Amino acid sequence: MVDLSKKEKLLVALAWPEPKDIVERIRNNYPNIRPALTTSPGIFDNVTILFTFNFYPPSPEAAPKLELVHVASAGADHVVKSPIFYPTDITFTTSSGIHGPQIGEWVILTLLVQNHHYNLLYEQQKTHTWTKYHEVKDVKDYVGQRLGVLGYGSIGRQAARIAKALGMVVIAYTATPKDTPEKRRDNGFIVPGTGDVDGSIPSQWYSGTDKASIHEFLKQDIDVLLVSVPLTKDTRHLLSTAEFDILSKKKALISNIARGAIIDQPALIAALEAGKLRGAALDVTDPEPLPSNDPLWKAPNVTITPHISGNAVDYIERLFAVLEVNLARRAKGEPLINVIDRKKGY
Amino acid sequence: MVDLSKKEKLLVALAWPEPKDIVERIRNNYPNIRPALTTSPGIFDNVTILFTFNFYPPSPEAAPKLELVHVASAGADHVVKSPIFYPTDITFTTSSGIHGPQIGEWVILTLLVQNHHYNLLYEQQKTHTWTKYHEVKDVKDYVGQRLGVLGYGSIGRQAARIAKALGMVVIAYTATPKDTPEKRRDNGFIVPGTGDVDGSIPSQWYSGTDKASIHEFLKQDIDVLLVSVPLTKDTRHLLSTAEFDILSKKKALISNIARGAIIDQPALIAALEAGKLRGAALDVTDPEPLPSNDPLWKAPNVTITPHISGNAVDYIERLFAVLEVNLARRAKGEPLINVIDRKKGY
Repeated sequence: MVDLSKKEKLLVALAWPEPKDIVERIRNNYPNIRPALTTSPGIFDNVTILFTFNFYPPSPEAAPKLELVHVASAGADHVVKSPIFYPTDITFTTSSGIHGPQIGEWVILTLLVQNHHYNLLYEQQKTHTWTKYHEVKDVKDYVGQRLGVLGYGSIGRQAARIAKALGMVVIAYTATPKDTPEKRRDNGFIVPGTGDVDGSIPSQWYSGTDKASIHEFLKQDIDVLLVSVPLTKDTRHLLSTAEFDILSKKKALISNIARGAIIDQPALIAALEAGKLRGAALDVTDPEPLPSNDPLWKAPNVTITPHISGNAVDYIERLFAVLEVNLARRAKGEPLINVIDRKKGY
Repeated sequence: MVDLSKKEKLLVALAWPEPKDIVERIRNNYPNIRPALTTSPGIFDNVTILFTFNFYPPSPEAAPKLELVHVASAGADHVVKSPIFYPTDITFTTSSGIHGPQIGEWVILTLLVQNHHYNLLYEQQKTHTWTKYHEVKDVKDYVGQRLGVLGYGSIGRQAARIAKALGMVVIAYTATPKDTPEKRRDNGFIVPGTGDVDGSIPSQWYSGTDKASIHEFLKQDIDVLLVSVPLTKDTRHLLSTAEFDILSKKKALISNIARGAIIDQPALIAALEAGKLRGAALDVTDPEPLPSNDPLWKAPNVTITPHISGNAVDYIERLFAVLEVNLARRAKGEPLINVIDRKKGY
């Protein structure tokens, strides 16, 4: 437990103008913490807490008082590589969990664009045309359809939350088995009012990292497959012809908000052209930017957006919300959230 | 309680081809019921149950055995006017409740189209352009925003369910006070997996039919107003300049899936042009079809669709689902749902 009378110095190292309201709020809530916002020489002197976006780590010697570093990114790879990580016992925390709301909305938006024929409706609106009823009558709503979530992290959980509200059945897939209620919990940061904190939304859970396990999951009559796993050597081209053949049973729709290279893109185009899949909603492609002559643009029933699903005006607010959760926990002597595990390296 | 050995005759009078699978299912589940599907003379002889879309009622004398009439529409006005309604004690049931899923999806789709700048993204996709990040960065997701639901029926409830999953706060408005848990329940048909059966989603409830009550509701910092009340003489032009002025506090977005005439349309156009409202999503207009030279088409930030939000391929399936709930209840001697109240006339 941290003594609230103990003087702390919080360094906020940002790539954008000072968020005055937020810093003022922290100053009021934690009078013992003195925030600093420049990056001038000697700035790490007496700093106990560091908030940083682009991670410019001090050497361990330059920041001898440092106890907690909060990094304004979801990933930890650049932190783990820095010289201050392994030799010290400084606590490092990430901003993982802040992308759920806006990306969850993007996932549902693009699903609904497809089944409600929104593009047709929009073109008719542009020409001031009252479309005939029969042109848009084949709307199949998502009630009872099965959403497979490949990677049940904060984004997958929020998309699942909305999908369940639509009446969908959710099937979760994770690398490691989630075979107890404790393992199904989301112990990281969650934007209040969103997500699936206790993992109660999925009606089935599958897990594994080998092809056979993935295929078993894909065989569960998936209508919509959400790709929300990190890109690693194991997940590169995880979805290719064999997987699309399995998904062709229900003529699934694929939604990818993770990384383009998880999908074998030529195989996806072929599956769409062959009518094996009902469509694809892609915020990420391989490569990015997608060249204007790439055949993906012309594949049937694709929605392509330029890696913007994570954009949100509340982004900065939520980066600090993670820090503030941990300032409160630190003041009460409780374990912090979003801590990078030194053994696992993430 | 109905004796299952009692022979019943179900007449299905439809304006479309026979749904063979559904009729076969009813035949299998209720062997004592003999379905009939023509409309030839004498067809009402021995009919105990009638399912009808366009309501062609028999005279009370022509259908002396009739006990239950299920009407394939949400409204009851045409039933109440028919000569067979008041003089008999036949039970009449409506298909109210089947529109929630698809119209709920339409409401959320059009909300997300606006805040995610989908039309811009779609135009860029059409030209195979990888949009610059900064063109779409001002996405304000709906977490914490307040949805006012003017008319908390089956459609309002399903939209509220999805909105809450997005992280929104829901405020319900009803004509009569819902001041007990029992009054907040939805006792009608609900598509399984959807809706708000116990009325637990709204965090606040308002009610009334006078202007002062409506204004009190609109003053609750509404960010998005969903119009889902029936059109009556009391609700015609319910929303006009005074109401838009109140909603301008949060620069609300208005969504109308009910009837165009509930909104004073010239006043709406003026409020949009004055920047008092952030936008409008309208599946209904006044008049319909909306003439191609109507100024509404050119109002800022409008989404206009041609009264198609209720379209769904599962429409027929769900009309029969209501009937089947009541066949099951009738077999068990339980009270039916969606019964038209002879005193209230709806």
